[in-house]
Amino acid sequence: MFKTIGLVGRAGKAEVEETVAEVEAFLCQRDTTLIVETNTASMLSVCEHKVCDREDMGGCDLIVVVGGDGSLLGVARDLAHTNTPVVGVNRGGLGFLAGIPPDQLGLLGDVLAGRYQLEEHFLLQLSLFRDGKLMGESTALNDIVVHSGSLARMIEFNLTVNGDFVYTQRSDGLIVASPTGSTAYSLSAGGPIMHPSLDAIVIVPMFPHTLTSRPLVVRGDSKLEIVITSEPSSSPMVSCDSQVDMAIAEGDIIRVEKAASPLRLVNPEQHSFFESCRSKLDWASRLVGA
Amino acid sequence: MFKTIGLVGRAGKAEVEETVAEVEAFLCQRDTTLIVETNTASMLSVCEHKVCDREDMGGCDLIVVVGGDGSLLGVARDLAHTNTPVVGVNRGGLGFLAGIPPDQLGLLGDVLAGRYQLEEHFLLQLSLFRDGKLMGESTALNDIVVHSGSLARMIEFNLTVNGDFVYTQRSDGLIVASPTGSTAYSLSAGGPIMHPSLDAIVIVPMFPHTLTSRPLVVRGDSKLEIVITSEPSSSPMVSCDSQVDMAIAEGDIIRVEKAASPLRLVNPEQHSFFESCRSKLDWASRLVGA
Amino acid sequence: MFKTIGLVGRAGKAEVEETVAEVEAFLCQRDTTLIVETNTASMLSVCEHKVCDREDMGGCDLIVVVGGDGSLLGVARDLAHTNTPVVGVNRGGLGFLAGIPPDQLGLLGDVLAGRYQLEEHFLLQLSLFRDGKLMGESTALNDIVVHSGSLARMIEFNLTVNGDFVYTQRSDGLIVASPTGSTAYSLSAGGPIMHPSLDAIVIVPMFPHTLTSRPLVVRGDSKLEIVITSEPSSSPMVSCDSQVDMAIAEGDIIRVEKAASPLRLVNPEQHSFFESCRSKLDWASRLVGA
Amino acid sequence: MFKTIGLVGRAGKAEVEETVAEVEAFLCQRDTTLIVETNTASMLSVCEHKVCDREDMGGCDLIVVVGGDGSLLGVARDLAHTNTPVVGVNRGGLGFLAGIPPDQLGLLGDVLAGRYQLEEHFLLQLSLFRDGKLMGESTALNDIVVHSGSLARMIEFNLTVNGDFVYTQRSDGLIVASPTGSTAYSLSAGGPIMHPSLDAIVIVPMFPHTLTSRPLVVRGDSKLEIVITSEPSSSPMVSCDSQVDMAIAEGDIIRVEKAASPLRLVNPEQHSFFESCRSKLDWASRLVGA
Repeated sequence: MFKTIGLVGRAGKAEVEETVAEVEAFLCQRDTTLIVETNTASMLSVCEHKVCDREDMGGCDLIVVVGGDGSLLGVARDLAHTNTPVVGVNRGGLGFLAGIPPDQLGLLGDVLAGRYQLEEHFLLQLSLFRDGKLMGESTALNDIVVHSGSLARMIEFNLTVNGDFVYTQRSDGLIVASPTGSTAYSLSAGGPIMHPSLDAIVIVPMFPHTLTSRPLVVRGDSKLEIVITSEPSSSPMVSCDSQVDMAIAEGDIIRVEKAASPLRLVNPEQHSFFESCRSKLDWASRLVGA
Repeated sequence: MFKTIGLVGRAGKAEVEETVAEVEAFLCQRDTTLIVETNTASMLSVCEHKVCDREDMGGCDLIVVVGGDGSLLGVARDLAHTNTPVVGVNRGGLGFLAGIPPDQLGLLGDVLAGRYQLEEHFLLQLSLFRDGKLMGESTALNDIVVHSGSLARMIEFNLTVNGDFVYTQRSDGLIVASPTGSTAYSLSAGGPIMHPSLDAIVIVPMFPHTLTSRPLVVRGDSKLEIVITSEPSSSPMVSCDSQVDMAIAEGDIIRVEKAASPLRLVNPEQHSFFESCRSKLDWASRLVGA
Repeated sequence: MFKTIGLVGRAGKAEVEETVAEVEAFLCQRDTTLIVETNTASMLSVCEHKVCDREDMGGCDLIVVVGGDGSLLGVARDLAHTNTPVVGVNRGGLGFLAGIPPDQLGLLGDVLAGRYQLEEHFLLQLSLFRDGKLMGESTALNDIVVHSGSLARMIEFNLTVNGDFVYTQRSDGLIVASPTGSTAYSLSAGGPIMHPSLDAIVIVPMFPHTLTSRPLVVRGDSKLEIVITSEPSSSPMVSCDSQVDMAIAEGDIIRVEKAASPLRLVNPEQHSFFESCRSKLDWASRLVGA
Repeated sequence: MFKTIGLVGRAGKAEVEETVAEVEAFLCQRDTTLIVETNTASMLSVCEHKVCDREDMGGCDLIVVVGGDGSLLGVARDLAHTNTPVVGVNRGGLGFLAGIPPDQLGLLGDVLAGRYQLEEHFLLQLSLFRDGKLMGESTALNDIVVHSGSLARMIEFNLTVNGDFVYTQRSDGLIVASPTGSTAYSLSAGGPIMHPSLDAIVIVPMFPHTLTSRPLVVRGDSKLEIVITSEPSSSPMVSCDSQVDMAIAEGDIIRVEKAASPLRLVNPEQHSFFESCRSKLDWASRLVGA
């Protein structure tokens, strides 16, 4: 099924390089054509495969990403629009997205043999407008964060959802997260966990100056606009997945909506979101008090 | 459009009785046929209208409920299956559901004249099983709460969603809320606010014994099962909208899913959910600290 | 140093009975006089020691309690006023208080040999007044909880601290906890962790109906009064350590202040509160997201 | 009683300048000697009083600060060591500290006449060490915040209290707040409210990467050390009251303890902390749900 396989690894970590080599060897033994991303090729002592830049890997049948969830976030932003399925081999931290442990590459064989689950994870589309002009665009798999640029510095903004005014808020910032991102930064800010199949967006205030602010969950097809009404003394920013930053200023309009193409994420068949929660979030492991 | 109008008022409060009389007078001046609920009829000094029990009001084109959100919860449970639209005149507390203030009965005229919004609010369906037998059923517009029967008494249960095991939890109980209920009890337990149009269910632990528990939002078409694994010393219960209680015991299976028929709620045209949040939850009114 | 040793075990659990026998054997080999609590004596196949009721054990130099924190709470309420030091052998759950694991009875030998830490844990004193008359008194090591008697049933009350009005609250109830209790029920309700040496009381609302309520920490010598202003439909109660319950009614005054005598808790020398937090609350074990 | 009065106003806000002039006029009519801070003198059209820098105002009997809590924070850091009493006339936002409303200057007359309360608010002392050398010192009335320099960037550190290891934490940062600061930034991060008379310090994690982190309250005489174990990619900082920033780096030791001299804050006699909470935090104004 998956014949042409792309291989991407996060540079600069010894254990990633080791696993990249193992995955390359594993795939060479299969009836596959391998295309290796330019930076990743430099990790291999010998590489007899086609090499190309990440942006040009959209023609692959499957892309294997070695690294943590952060690496998958980057690939998702770059390649989701090509609809190419992606599978992660986890050499990072928690790995909610990267479904294959590095010591179980046999699961990758199962995927190649057609034994897998395909999950669609929608991305958020960011558009930044200033004086009516589009200043920048990006996408995020986890979250788009509008913030003052520094902790304990306040930013003030208005939020509308589908044109309906929601509130004026003064806070350190605002997190807009997809279900996929609900187990990442949003969670540490008090947001709920959302099942990946849910078509919803959660909006979580960061250290709000009112005690009545709460996380707000809206439909996945909502169009959000955040208008910056007061610029903090620091350098305010909007960030996608904490990887892409754009400077913002008073009067800017930040539009967030669902991106056109989702990440098509491949997981081994026995994968379960709640099992990930139990093991990665340590559900139910310890009990409080008496 | 709405010709046959049912009238229901919550008994026992003087201001409700007063408003019931005003609504009756208001409707008599319109080209409508009025049907008054039995208990409500006794509030009127003279009642020349047809009188019937609440259960038999399903044939009305519209039911006007005078009272608080609690009164609407009751009507929703009893009559949602008939698809009859319902409008609330608020003589209760906050009134997230009851859209017409008692001093603006003109808005009721607008509704009769066809100027209104119709919102569907789904109900949750509760089925309680013991030893394979159905012991009881009910519905809830806001929430279904499984609890130990007393505060600071622990109950232990397993939760599954669509057959997938989620967790074993020890806590005072569990709140399962609809979007409509997300601004009620669930909110005071730390759940997120969910837009009424969202097709989702939120699951909120009550005083969980682990520090890693968090509110969980799942799709509206999910089937939840809560299996009681350890009975507390007190008298555990499952409650619908805090109005219908059933005793539960170790081994019981509590099934929660979306009910077949939603409440069809009528609101004046200018009604806005976020405006309700701003005014009723006091969003943005006060700022913390320096 | 400790010559006359009292022995108390929680009845009804096999593993407690086993450990009680082991502790008895261990102490018999030491140069000590053993006094066994009446119920505990019945767990021993043979008991050649003096037997007396718990209330009469105040003359011991040290009381060994076998069980969980719950057992220690009971002994603390009954015997703290005698100033007798208490040490716990943990056969319960978490055991924040019971400092000796059952498989490390050598630590009990260390305690007898004078190698121990003595910590004072203050108790809270509850006095319940109706129509100016004292209706009941008790103490609590962890917490005093005023509640509606059932979840999702509201109780309304006024709180004063040292005569200063704090707030009128509508909620399911109110937790008043000592530093010792701050890692128990109060914690699951959102209260902070307080170091056991802190001279402070924390007041934590339970599912408050306002979004602006927050845990409040006051000085340990504060006098709190909670006046019930509205009785719920259920049966409201005030509870000490979830072990002693008193019915309350509208107009009742619940006074809470520090009790005259603290629990004098003996721990092995290497005991550390923060180590207990790390192991029992699972601090830092798992990381969120990416 | 208060004969020599210092006058300090926050520059740059028209309403502050107006109130500074009113206060000056008010004090001129009293039997007082006025000393005006250099920048403040420039706000007065005519100033026939002695003018000096803020640092040299320690000889005053009382210092009147016109502005918000932020202005008082600055004066507290600069002059608390001189033990000079300070009173605030509130031209800022909430004003938990500034006790006199600008339209009630008569209260300032009461203060001069000896009708006032004197509250001591302790400050936190920050000492920053690198390679064993003291790199910087400052004090804070509200809080000392160690942070990664940017939101959604992680910093890793170890915390000890009185030499006892507490935890290793990965988070956006850590707030260490006094009781005075417990109603400011700490509160929006989930910390408890602490009565100003409490001798305690609260430690609140900012977006911690573990779900088990909770606010921690320790004794006021505790010595805290935060050792930076991993430097984020951004520019990490430690901040006092969000007004004084110092850059920090991996290996740095941040010591926090109670400062030697408290702020001696003067308030009108009827001042009540809980009344401030009710009015400024909007306690009990609105009710949730049904």
